[in-house]
Amino acid sequence: MRRPCVGAKAGYSGAMISARPINPVLVEAMRGETRESAHRGAIVVVDADGKRLVALGDVERPVFPRSAVKVLQAIPLVESGAADRLALDDEELAIACASHNGEPRHVAVVERMLAKAGLDVDALECGTHWPRIGKVANAIAAAGREPSALHNNCSGKHAGFLCLACVLCDGVHLRQYAKGYVAPRHPVMRAVTEALEATTGHDLRQAPRGIDGCSIPTYAIPLDRLALAFARIGTGTGLRPGHARAATQLMRAVARHPFMAAGSDRFDTTVMEALGARVYCKVGAEAVFCASFPERGLGVAIKIDDGNTARAAEVAMAAAIEALVDLDDEEADVLRRLSDVPLRNWNGIEVGALRATNELRAGLLV
Amino acid sequence: MRRPCVGAKAGYSGAMISARPINPVLVEAMRGETRESAHRGAIVVVDADGKRLVALGDVERPVFPRSAVKVLQAIPLVESGAADRLALDDEELAIACASHNGEPRHVAVVERMLAKAGLDVDALECGTHWPRIGKVANAIAAAGREPSALHNNCSGKHAGFLCLACVLCDGVHLRQYAKGYVAPRHPVMRAVTEALEATTGHDLRQAPRGIDGCSIPTYAIPLDRLALAFARIGTGTGLRPGHARAATQLMRAVARHPFMAAGSDRFDTTVMEALGARVYCKVGAEAVFCASFPERGLGVAIKIDDGNTARAAEVAMAAAIEALVDLDDEEADVLRRLSDVPLRNWNGIEVGALRATNELRAGLLV
Repeated sequence: MRRPCVGAKAGYSGAMISARPINPVLVEAMRGETRESAHRGAIVVVDADGKRLVALGDVERPVFPRSAVKVLQAIPLVESGAADRLALDDEELAIACASHNGEPRHVAVVERMLAKAGLDVDALECGTHWPRIGKVANAIAAAGREPSALHNNCSGKHAGFLCLACVLCDGVHLRQYAKGYVAPRHPVMRAVTEALEATTGHDLRQAPRGIDGCSIPTYAIPLDRLALAFARIGTGTGLRPGHARAATQLMRAVARHPFMAAGSDRFDTTVMEALGARVYCKVGAEAVFCASFPERGLGVAIKIDDGNTARAAEVAMAAAIEALVDLDDEEADVLRRLSDVPLRNWNGIEVGALRATNELRAGLLV
Repeated sequence: MRRPCVGAKAGYSGAMISARPINPVLVEAMRGETRESAHRGAIVVVDADGKRLVALGDVERPVFPRSAVKVLQAIPLVESGAADRLALDDEELAIACASHNGEPRHVAVVERMLAKAGLDVDALECGTHWPRIGKVANAIAAAGREPSALHNNCSGKHAGFLCLACVLCDGVHLRQYAKGYVAPRHPVMRAVTEALEATTGHDLRQAPRGIDGCSIPTYAIPLDRLALAFARIGTGTGLRPGHARAATQLMRAVARHPFMAAGSDRFDTTVMEALGARVYCKVGAEAVFCASFPERGLGVAIKIDDGNTARAAEVAMAAAIEALVDLDDEEADVLRRLSDVPLRNWNGIEVGALRATNELRAGLLV
C-alpha cells in the first residue's frame, strides 16, 4: 500500500495544479535521538542585483508575506513626509514596522502616535486580540480588563497608516477620510501597495490577493522577490531615492528600539538587540520570515510550508544569520540558542530539541 | 538553482537515513482561493485483523504516540482491579484517559480520585503548566492564583497511575512506593508499557524511547500498529480478555463523560458528545491522533509530519470520521465544521479556511 511520491503535485489548489518541487526539511523537532516532527520549507538568499547565493526548495513560489513586509509597507509614511510633519520619533517609526506583544510600552507608543495625528484607538481598523504572550495576557486579565485594538500586534502599523492618511488629506475631515483605510482602493492602501510593488519589483495587479489578519490586503509574491526587496533596502540598490532614504530611516529606528519591533522574549527583538543594525529581521504569520543583512548586502526570505513560525521559521532564520553574518562569540551564543533549542518538559527535563537540519546548514555554506 | 526532490531522504535523523516515501498533503490552509500553508502526514485505517482499508503516506513509520494512547495506558488501572477496589466512578475513569483543559470540573475530579487513594496533588509527578485555553488560564490569573499539577492536562492519567500504585503495593507505604512512578522500571510504568505492547502487538524493548511532556516514557510505534490497537479495543479481537474488558469499560466511561476527556471547545469532547460510543478518539501531542470506530470494527491513526495538532491532525480526523462513520444530518454538520473550518481575522472577516485536501478525501473513499 506504499504510495509513490505524490507531493510533486502540490502547490496551488484549484484548477491549475502545477508540478512544483517538494521543499526540503529545514527544521526538525527531536525527541531524544529520534526525529519526532519535521518542517519543510524554502529559503533564498540574494544580493541586491538578484543574484542567488542560497536557494533551497521552491524559491519562486509566490507566498503571502503577511507581516514580514511591514517595513516596506511603512515606507510611504516616511517618503510622503508624514513622519516629519507629525514629528514621529524613532520609537514610533519602529512600532510602525512591528508585530508587537501589546505590552504596556507598546500600547503607550501607539497611543502617542495616534494622538500626534489627532486620533485615538477608535480610528484603528485592525481589530482586537488578546496578546499572545501568556504573561502579558495574564496581566490584563488579572487587572480585570480586556484588550483593545491598541494591543493588536499590528496597531503600530495601523497607526502609521493613519498618520499617512492625516497628511494625504491635509488633516481635513481626517476621521471621515481615514475610514476604510484598510481597503485596497483607499489612497492609503494604494500608496502602501505601490511601495511593495516598487521594492519587490513584482507586479501585484495579477498577484493572488488575500485579506490579512488585520484586514489589509496581502498579495502573494515570489519568495525570491521578497528576498530581493530586503537586499535592496539594506543597500539602496535598485530603489528610487525616496524609498531608499525612507527604508534606511525605518531600519535605523528599529535598530535603536528593537523592543518596539516585537517585545519581551521575541526573536526579532532578541536578535536585533544583540546585533544592532547589522541585521534587520521581521517575522510574518504563517512562517514567512524576511531579513536584510546590510553589511553583506544580502536579503533573505523563508517560508515554512506548514506555517509554523515559532517552531520553524525562527529556527531557520537563526541558522541563516549564523551562516551569513560575522558574529563574535557572545553573538554566536545568542544565535545558537535560537537555532538549536533544547525542549524541556513540564518538569524541566530536557526531552529533545528543535534544530536546523544538516541539510539547511549545508545549504547555507556559501 | 532548483533542487531535485530531496525529501525521499527524510525520515530518521542520525547515521541511518533510510529512503522513505514523502507523505501527501492531508490538510491545507487557504487564504482566499490560494493555498497559504500545507500539512503533510500519514493516515491508516485498519480492521482488528490488521487489514488496511486506507493507507496514505508512510504508515509503517514509527511515531511517538504521546497522549493519543492514554486509554491503552489506563488499561492496567482497570485490569488490576484497582478501579474496583478504589470504587472509581465513570468520571474518574474518563479523566484517567484524558488530556483535559484544567477546568474547575477536571481539577475537582482528579482531586477526588487522588483522595480515594489517600493521596493529594503532592504525589503527582506530571509537572505544572498553565491551561492552554485562554479563558481557563485567564480565570486563574484573574483570581490572582497560579496553576498546580492538578491543572496539567495529564493529571488524570497520573492520578490513575497513582491509584494503580496504591493497589500494587496494597496501600503499604504508598507515598514511598509511588515515588518515581514515571520511571520506565517502576512497577506502575512496567504494567503500563506491557499493556501498550500487548494491545499494539509491537515489541517495545527495541523501540526508540523518549520522555513525554509529563515525564513518563513514550515509545515510537509504527502508525499502523497504533491503528491496530484502536481497532482491537473497539472489538475485543486480538486482545486478552482482561484487556478487552478494561478497554470497553474505559471507553464506555469516556462516552458517558466526554467533557472529562478534554473539555470546553475541544475536538475530542465535541465529537464524542455528538456521536456517543460510536467513536472513541484521542489526540496526542505533535499531531498524533488515534480513534476507534467500534460499529465499523476499525481503528485509525494519523500523524501530521510537522506536529501541528489543532490545525491539521484534528481536521484530518474529522474527515476520517465523515468518511467512515454513518452520520445523520446533524452529526454531519458537527463534523463538517471540524473538517472545513472557516478562518476569520480579528475583525471577524472570513479570510480563508482550514480544510481536508481532495487527496485525503479521495483516499478515504473505501
